[in-house]
Amino acid sequence: MDIQIGRGKTARRAYGIDEIALVPGLRTLDPVLADTHWTVGGIDREIPIIASAMDGVIDVGMAVHLSQLGALGVLNLEGIQTRYADPNPILDRIASVGNDGFVTLMQELYAEPIKAELITQRIQEIKQQGGIAAVSATPIGATKYGETVAKAGADLFFIQATVVSTAHLSPETVTPLDLANFCLEMPIPVILGNCVTYEVTLNLMKAGAAAVLVGIGPGAACTSRGVLGVGIPQATAIADCAAARDDYHRDTGNYVPIIADGGLITGGDICKCIACGADGVMIGSPFARAKEAPGRGYHWGMATPSPILPRGTRIKVGSTGTLEQILRGPAQLDDGTHNLLGALKTSMGTLGAKNLKEMQQVEVVIAPSLLTEGKVYQKAQQLGMGK
Amino acid sequence: MDIQIGRGKTARRAYGIDEIALVPGLRTLDPVLADTHWTVGGIDREIPIIASAMDGVIDVGMAVHLSQLGALGVLNLEGIQTRYADPNPILDRIASVGNDGFVTLMQELYAEPIKAELITQRIQEIKQQGGIAAVSATPIGATKYGETVAKAGADLFFIQATVVSTAHLSPETVTPLDLANFCLEMPIPVILGNCVTYEVTLNLMKAGAAAVLVGIGPGAACTSRGVLGVGIPQATAIADCAAARDDYHRDTGNYVPIIADGGLITGGDICKCIACGADGVMIGSPFARAKEAPGRGYHWGMATPSPILPRGTRIKVGSTGTLEQILRGPAQLDDGTHNLLGALKTSMGTLGAKNLKEMQQVEVVIAPSLLTEGKVYQKAQQLGMGK
Amino acid sequence: MDIQIGRGKTARRAYGIDEIALVPGLRTLDPVLADTHWTVGGIDREIPIIASAMDGVIDVGMAVHLSQLGALGVLNLEGIQTRYADPNPILDRIASVGNDGFVTLMQELYAEPIKAELITQRIQEIKQQGGIAAVSATPIGATKYGETVAKAGADLFFIQATVVSTAHLSPETVTPLDLANFCLEMPIPVILGNCVTYEVTLNLMKAGAAAVLVGIGPGAACTSRGVLGVGIPQATAIADCAAARDDYHRDTGNYVPIIADGGLITGGDICKCIACGADGVMIGSPFARAKEAPGRGYHWGMATPSPILPRGTRIKVGSTGTLEQILRGPAQLDDGTHNLLGALKTSMGTLGAKNLKEMQQVEVVIAPSLLTEGKVYQKAQQLGMGK
Amino acid sequence: MDIQIGRGKTARRAYGIDEIALVPGLRTLDPVLADTHWTVGGIDREIPIIASAMDGVIDVGMAVHLSQLGALGVLNLEGIQTRYADPNPILDRIASVGNDGFVTLMQELYAEPIKAELITQRIQEIKQQGGIAAVSATPIGATKYGETVAKAGADLFFIQATVVSTAHLSPETVTPLDLANFCLEMPIPVILGNCVTYEVTLNLMKAGAAAVLVGIGPGAACTSRGVLGVGIPQATAIADCAAARDDYHRDTGNYVPIIADGGLITGGDICKCIACGADGVMIGSPFARAKEAPGRGYHWGMATPSPILPRGTRIKVGSTGTLEQILRGPAQLDDGTHNLLGALKTSMGTLGAKNLKEMQQVEVVIAPSLLTEGKVYQKAQQLGMGK
Repeated sequence: MDIQIGRGKTARRAYGIDEIALVPGLRTLDPVLADTHWTVGGIDREIPIIASAMDGVIDVGMAVHLSQLGALGVLNLEGIQTRYADPNPILDRIASVGNDGFVTLMQELYAEPIKAELITQRIQEIKQQGGIAAVSATPIGATKYGETVAKAGADLFFIQATVVSTAHLSPETVTPLDLANFCLEMPIPVILGNCVTYEVTLNLMKAGAAAVLVGIGPGAACTSRGVLGVGIPQATAIADCAAARDDYHRDTGNYVPIIADGGLITGGDICKCIACGADGVMIGSPFARAKEAPGRGYHWGMATPSPILPRGTRIKVGSTGTLEQILRGPAQLDDGTHNLLGALKTSMGTLGAKNLKEMQQVEVVIAPSLLTEGKVYQKAQQLGMGK
Repeated sequence: MDIQIGRGKTARRAYGIDEIALVPGLRTLDPVLADTHWTVGGIDREIPIIASAMDGVIDVGMAVHLSQLGALGVLNLEGIQTRYADPNPILDRIASVGNDGFVTLMQELYAEPIKAELITQRIQEIKQQGGIAAVSATPIGATKYGETVAKAGADLFFIQATVVSTAHLSPETVTPLDLANFCLEMPIPVILGNCVTYEVTLNLMKAGAAAVLVGIGPGAACTSRGVLGVGIPQATAIADCAAARDDYHRDTGNYVPIIADGGLITGGDICKCIACGADGVMIGSPFARAKEAPGRGYHWGMATPSPILPRGTRIKVGSTGTLEQILRGPAQLDDGTHNLLGALKTSMGTLGAKNLKEMQQVEVVIAPSLLTEGKVYQKAQQLGMGK
Repeated sequence: MDIQIGRGKTARRAYGIDEIALVPGLRTLDPVLADTHWTVGGIDREIPIIASAMDGVIDVGMAVHLSQLGALGVLNLEGIQTRYADPNPILDRIASVGNDGFVTLMQELYAEPIKAELITQRIQEIKQQGGIAAVSATPIGATKYGETVAKAGADLFFIQATVVSTAHLSPETVTPLDLANFCLEMPIPVILGNCVTYEVTLNLMKAGAAAVLVGIGPGAACTSRGVLGVGIPQATAIADCAAARDDYHRDTGNYVPIIADGGLITGGDICKCIACGADGVMIGSPFARAKEAPGRGYHWGMATPSPILPRGTRIKVGSTGTLEQILRGPAQLDDGTHNLLGALKTSMGTLGAKNLKEMQQVEVVIAPSLLTEGKVYQKAQQLGMGK
Repeated sequence: MDIQIGRGKTARRAYGIDEIALVPGLRTLDPVLADTHWTVGGIDREIPIIASAMDGVIDVGMAVHLSQLGALGVLNLEGIQTRYADPNPILDRIASVGNDGFVTLMQELYAEPIKAELITQRIQEIKQQGGIAAVSATPIGATKYGETVAKAGADLFFIQATVVSTAHLSPETVTPLDLANFCLEMPIPVILGNCVTYEVTLNLMKAGAAAVLVGIGPGAACTSRGVLGVGIPQATAIADCAAARDDYHRDTGNYVPIIADGGLITGGDICKCIACGADGVMIGSPFARAKEAPGRGYHWGMATPSPILPRGTRIKVGSTGTLEQILRGPAQLDDGTHNLLGALKTSMGTLGAKNLKEMQQVEVVIAPSLLTEGKVYQKAQQLGMGK
């Protein structure tokens, strides 16, 4: 399996989502028969799609609307929404700054402290409007605000870092977050990520994760691979982590879903992640294109505001339709970014998969990479060269 | 053969037409000695090329003209021609709408009901003008209009869906089309597609297909791979389905041709499909560029008008010459899109193949992908970047 | 070695020049010590580079000048130079026509008959000015004008077709050229091509070839792979044909050089061909860029004028320097297209190769394809998209 | 391991930096715990990054400033700084010439003789301002100026040629530089390069190299692969040469670091080189983008001024920030070209590597090539297509 790069250095070939395609089998299915339900942290959802905890994607309104439509949205606890009582003028500034001033402006805006009372307020706003209150923080944020979140009545807690592990070395002056202890003490399910390997997935499940986020460095708004050299192509990462989930399930009887996160743009991307073994997906930029999204047609990564080493960039994604069109259709675009649920059901019908478990078993081929138009557009826009 | 994508997930490498090239052997041949005849559904044709059942490609006039030139064109029974007594103003509107309004306009225009009497009329018009009346419908359309088509005197019936199988699950309220029964009861040959695997090809032949269409997701005007994640590179699909044809022939004595469908643009593409094992090809965009084509220089996919999940896009292909120039020359372009028959005969001469059976046996190499100019143009136009 | 494309269809992976790179060994060499001499058809030359028999590249003046500079140029006997007593106004028209009118104009200009007396005159002009008279014709042209060429006192005769074989089937009304007989009867060395395989190379050598041209479909001004699907990546073709040359030499004691022809643009391309086993190279577009070239900054393929199926296209290559600068330097461009001899000597020095035989043995690696700027430029210009 | 390109010619697949990515392990690390110190030629440095001896990158001020910031810069002894007492008007002319006149102007400017007294002066200026005086020359330059350099009090001497070997053949009239003798006689450490293979690395270490530079032909400002066909993808070259270093260390107890040189643009590139086995890296273009750089926003290769065969080209890289921002942050760009030390520390933290030795052992995967934005920009600018 291993390929020799040079004397004494071997490597495995890892595959990305753009390098695979799905193969129809002997049976087809009317899409209405395709059952897309899944359960995460004890919550049943019709649609296995979670909107990323990014400031251009989720505010209270989006979280509520996504819940009503059968999906889920996660609020970033360390972003604009919890630093500013009124985020609107802030979001206006981000949408109107030029590319040259973007990083500096973000560093300035994110220097404003996070307010615990705003965390409480946002969670309660979501709950009062009938939404599922899923929130996200970094490990440091989890240490600081975990108790606030629990008291405010949130439903799900996501702890997300670029790379998470159960063995984090810190300087002696810092007490690192004990993930197992945190999961044990939190009264609500805790979802952990991101990771890309079998071993770390297993460790996170043993630590008590209610679900595990899979994906490092594959996203369009994420430049980890360029800045850090780190990043695993997503098809391989999902298959490896799915194997850990299955082994953990076999050994403990506990089924902990894995969620593919990063770099997914079209309905086809979502279908391929599930076919590689994912239970659900987390996506950002497709929802940043909703008319209701707080980003006003822009999308940017979570790592952007770092005062020292900003990663992630701002992309003009435009506003292409309502959230409902994007999630449930009817589609007004034919590039795979509208009616994601319809695409999933149609793909399952095409492939003869009655439910997500069967979809995880469909045949995959390695195919010459065919970047979808959406991705070419996004890359061109990212580079300021698009139309 | 299988490659491990990740733990517990293996995949085969599949190859596309752009990844292969043909190798001359010990013999060459004067192109006039190359015999390109084939038979499909009992009809002998000089040229193994069928024009796709797409609204920008085939109307009555094109079907007749293609028949006269030694080829074949298939009329779409669920398109503009059978919804409107006078399709011309409709086609004018499609050609003049901007990219932004295209999907919405198509959804509106294709909401007009199909008229059975127009189906009868179009078939009779083709027959009266001396053409071969080959028509196409989806499985649902076949159920509805099969009898009308048979009575109207059509010669060949194509049933086409993105993916077809002999085992289609439907909701209890719906009676799915029984393909074997349909083939048995139709008084004319029925051609089935599309499929990409050995097993489904065999099943379709057992169901009584007069020919099988091979190809899912490879076409320029088709975005199935982006929207659904589904799509098999065409060189591998053809080789697999050709093996099924040969096994079925050996076992039953019945030779059922396979037709490569989708993503073919140049004469070289056609030659390569036959070298992979195809008996004939179905092509759309090269004929959409004919001065006589109903698309007025535009080309769009069959899946486009879906009110829920439109796939396929509209490409400005331009009008580059007469149908005769495109099919039989003389060529006025040097990019492989004019004189497709001449290209096939010249390629066969170069490779020493006296007929299509010998052409199916020529040596193939895997070569670094070299997109032809035609494809680069189309892709650029698709992205709105062409000149 | 063989890869399965699909059931029952296997293929070899073939490699192109852009996919390989040369590896320095234990020794380096001052470039002045690199000996680049070779012999073709009994004629010693300092530089193993032959200018292609293309109308934009070679006229009498270029043939003479190339001879004086240590190389060789081949005059096309079926082009402008032998159809028109004064080719200059014709070449002016080609240089000034737009892209849209190019194919039609070429078909018109090449309809003018070839004059045997102009063949005699051009050969004598070259000889009188002290040049080596190397001329080229198709197999049909060879049959017609072989005797004229021999009588006129030419030094080398090239017979070139896209694909040549020793077993060519013709209609009964046509007598095909017997290559072995032609080589036997011609009083001057005959060079045959093009081919890409071990077996055909061996057959051509047995037929009496003084050298064999290797390359089908790889060139920038050649669209054979798009139009016909035919074309073998050049690194593999050269290595295979070089093996035939070595086996033939071992068996007969007769060393018949092989000449890589097609798609070569930079000095690096030339070096890589020799490292794959070529004895010399034939190049067109680099010389079309000479101020002295008849193409006036344009370059077009030999197959272009076909009245039925034109292949090859016209590229604006510009005039970047004198022939001497391009061949022997000093270079005024840093993209590898000036001072081709200097590049070869420097590369040989870098790799420690004292002569071409040692250069044929240097280590090669397969490397990720890195298109040179020159090729990207040419491709962009070919598509009308360059600056 | 070897792949057959054609009969009788085999090759190894070599991998480039863009084809690999780094895999997180079981442990993560706070970046403040990542120790990036290394030692080269007996000099301890906090940052394993050396600025290339290129005229657009290093002058006295840059060398001093890099030393103060914990890194190192190498002054080119055969460039503008030692040919002109006042380099500023010369650098102004280079920055203002058009692309067409660039090569000619460079050939003119570099025809000015090198002055030994300017070599002495530049070295002393660096020392007087508290910098580390590292200087570079070609083998010929080393022969001529070695003694001058030693007397002037330099700290490190780099001997660099495109390809260096311990067995260089010269004409009888020339005495080649004996590397072993030179290393023995120089009173300061001598660093040798460039090379790409295990064997040559070992030979250079046996000759007394204090460090070895690894890399031939991979750089954006280097066109060796196009001009000469020579060039080894960097991941493979580093792994091979690192194996030689480890074997030499095991056999002699002497640890001679290897420095990856060429084609590195982002922090991620640097991280990946170390993960392949490099001890440090040498980079040019990222520092050419410093406001303090002598190139005034332009960058050009060392081989450019060759009067005979210019290689390397001039790229407009722009001035994007201060040297401190580029090296130590805080970053104002998010594309991986600012805060290179921060990127290295963050990557090490992500991968759980406490020091460079551990970083050399992290897991690598082969991933589909993902050109970073920086590289796309540079390539676009190089082709004159950027914004």
